[in-house]
Amino acid sequence: MSNDSRFIKACKRQNVDATPVWFMRQAGRYMPEYRAIREKYTLLEIVQQPELAAEVTLQPVRAFGVDAAILFADILLPLKPMGLDFEFAKGEGPVIHNPVRTMDDVKALRPLEPETSLAHVMETIRLLRGELRQTPLIGFCGAPFTVASYMIEGGSSRNYRYAKSMMYDAPQVWHTFMDKLTDALAAYLTAQIRAGAQAVQMFDSWVGALSPQDYAEFVLPYSQRVLQAAQETGVPVIHFGTNTATLLPLMKRAGGDVIGLDWRVPLDEGWALLGDDVAVQGNLDPVALFAPLPELEKRVRDVLRRAAGRPGHIFNLGHGILQHTPPEKVKAVVEMVHSSGSHIR
Amino acid sequence: MSNDSRFIKACKRQNVDATPVWFMRQAGRYMPEYRAIREKYTLLEIVQQPELAAEVTLQPVRAFGVDAAILFADILLPLKPMGLDFEFAKGEGPVIHNPVRTMDDVKALRPLEPETSLAHVMETIRLLRGELRQTPLIGFCGAPFTVASYMIEGGSSRNYRYAKSMMYDAPQVWHTFMDKLTDALAAYLTAQIRAGAQAVQMFDSWVGALSPQDYAEFVLPYSQRVLQAAQETGVPVIHFGTNTATLLPLMKRAGGDVIGLDWRVPLDEGWALLGDDVAVQGNLDPVALFAPLPELEKRVRDVLRRAAGRPGHIFNLGHGILQHTPPEKVKAVVEMVHSSGSHIR
Repeated sequence: MSNDSRFIKACKRQNVDATPVWFMRQAGRYMPEYRAIREKYTLLEIVQQPELAAEVTLQPVRAFGVDAAILFADILLPLKPMGLDFEFAKGEGPVIHNPVRTMDDVKALRPLEPETSLAHVMETIRLLRGELRQTPLIGFCGAPFTVASYMIEGGSSRNYRYAKSMMYDAPQVWHTFMDKLTDALAAYLTAQIRAGAQAVQMFDSWVGALSPQDYAEFVLPYSQRVLQAAQETGVPVIHFGTNTATLLPLMKRAGGDVIGLDWRVPLDEGWALLGDDVAVQGNLDPVALFAPLPELEKRVRDVLRRAAGRPGHIFNLGHGILQHTPPEKVKAVVEMVHSSGSHIR
Repeated sequence: MSNDSRFIKACKRQNVDATPVWFMRQAGRYMPEYRAIREKYTLLEIVQQPELAAEVTLQPVRAFGVDAAILFADILLPLKPMGLDFEFAKGEGPVIHNPVRTMDDVKALRPLEPETSLAHVMETIRLLRGELRQTPLIGFCGAPFTVASYMIEGGSSRNYRYAKSMMYDAPQVWHTFMDKLTDALAAYLTAQIRAGAQAVQMFDSWVGALSPQDYAEFVLPYSQRVLQAAQETGVPVIHFGTNTATLLPLMKRAGGDVIGLDWRVPLDEGWALLGDDVAVQGNLDPVALFAPLPELEKRVRDVLRRAAGRPGHIFNLGHGILQHTPPEKVKAVVEMVHSSGSHIR
């Protein structure tokens, strides 16, 4: 049985020899190998050079023996080819200088042709498939709401005032925008699968800002279209969000073979809300990786105990690895999860 | 029946002639009257001058006819008298230059004597009780977790890395700190009640960052002590948080006559989780106040419909009023809630 199949099998709720584990943002600044490359290149420069992006993707696979690699990229890569003036400003995070606010702005958006405008991403995937033997490669995109929120707000947001105001004031603009963005994201994600991604994750990181009513009306149909387009290819699809305790049944309805859970909901309770017919991924608090080993181990064991060895659990954090995380703790978690014994029941 | 009793009666789950309504952060920058004063004084200068603080507190009562006034103050006022070098930095929010990280830092904290070190707050309350006729006055404090998170992180935080790390790495430091902070906050809140506050609210605004397990172990006992100290005085006590869908049963166990709900949980579902023996406050999304009137009205009516006229609902937002909110929308919501008819069932 290959390492490779452990992650894919868990996505399909099949029995596995040990719980698979990977980490959101497992390639990043907390790794000295990554910092060495970032001294010479910006994030976007790394992403645009397939050899560099592939190297960075492989770093945590080599260092920690995680059960899946995740493409090194950013959920905002489609913005530039769609016509937005987007950059990572120093210390400020993403900044969009011409945010989408009106119907004219929506109409000006260009359709995404990922095979040409994001050819470097597809090339990175092809390179990685040549390098990775038994470790499956996860592709990803942002979900329509989360990507739209950046495009409308012009960057990160605390209250999502402009995004929600578009829903409430100008629903036609919102729906026209989401329709166009959904096409772009579905095209991007399926292009990654054609290039070789063996599973994909849709990141709806900021969806927890919405009420269930608003999610159902303004977001669910679009998330569903991206997820369905990916699921029709046959690869496993992970549907991720944070702060989603009241959204989980709706997120399941939107789709995905695997639903991400954050630490705010105990894994067993979250899984019970979702039902037996879907796999789950999560849900250690990223800050637990700063804890001393015995405390960290207690928390890892608690997540595994709540999963109770049921087929269909992929161990992960509830959100991305934080910047100053000690790499040795990441390695320790991989070992804890793998040594937790056979989960074939 | 006085206006005054409408809010207090709802806190006690008694029948009322109309649902009472007030707004968190109802005095603030979105009001031109407030901005006129802020042109001449900083926030802390207003708070330190009882006449000014009282005037600002009264502005939304006069402008909108809300059913309660809330003391104009800040949850971080206890920090300076406890020995922290705290300021509101321009554009950055609160900054604490000597954050609490070690047992020595905890030991160096001074006990709070609110009647002397925060005498201006008590004087503001006394002034307000002279001015307010039928409108009850709400006092408030931050909850131990939320205040501790600022004191440990040194300001606002996204991940609460230092606060959670103290729980996980140095639980003795955490518990010693929370014990001391709880004494201070309970003293502060009960002093406000003695000065004349007719109800109080404990703001645990950031508690939604925690898992239920961590809340139960590291936070609940301390929140409980503050709430109990206030409840023993006999005034109604409101227990508020955001992102609390998975914490609500534990928050109820911690205490409060009224539990705050944010928009992430439909009001009826949140109330069902809490049970019939507690009142609820909420839960319109603050961004709804930017919507056109018909959409805003639809959303206000939805909240009222979910409350179904059961005694014990106080209409409010799910969090504070946002900076650019149009004041006329605030006024409109007050009228919508009051005109929604008799709620005596």
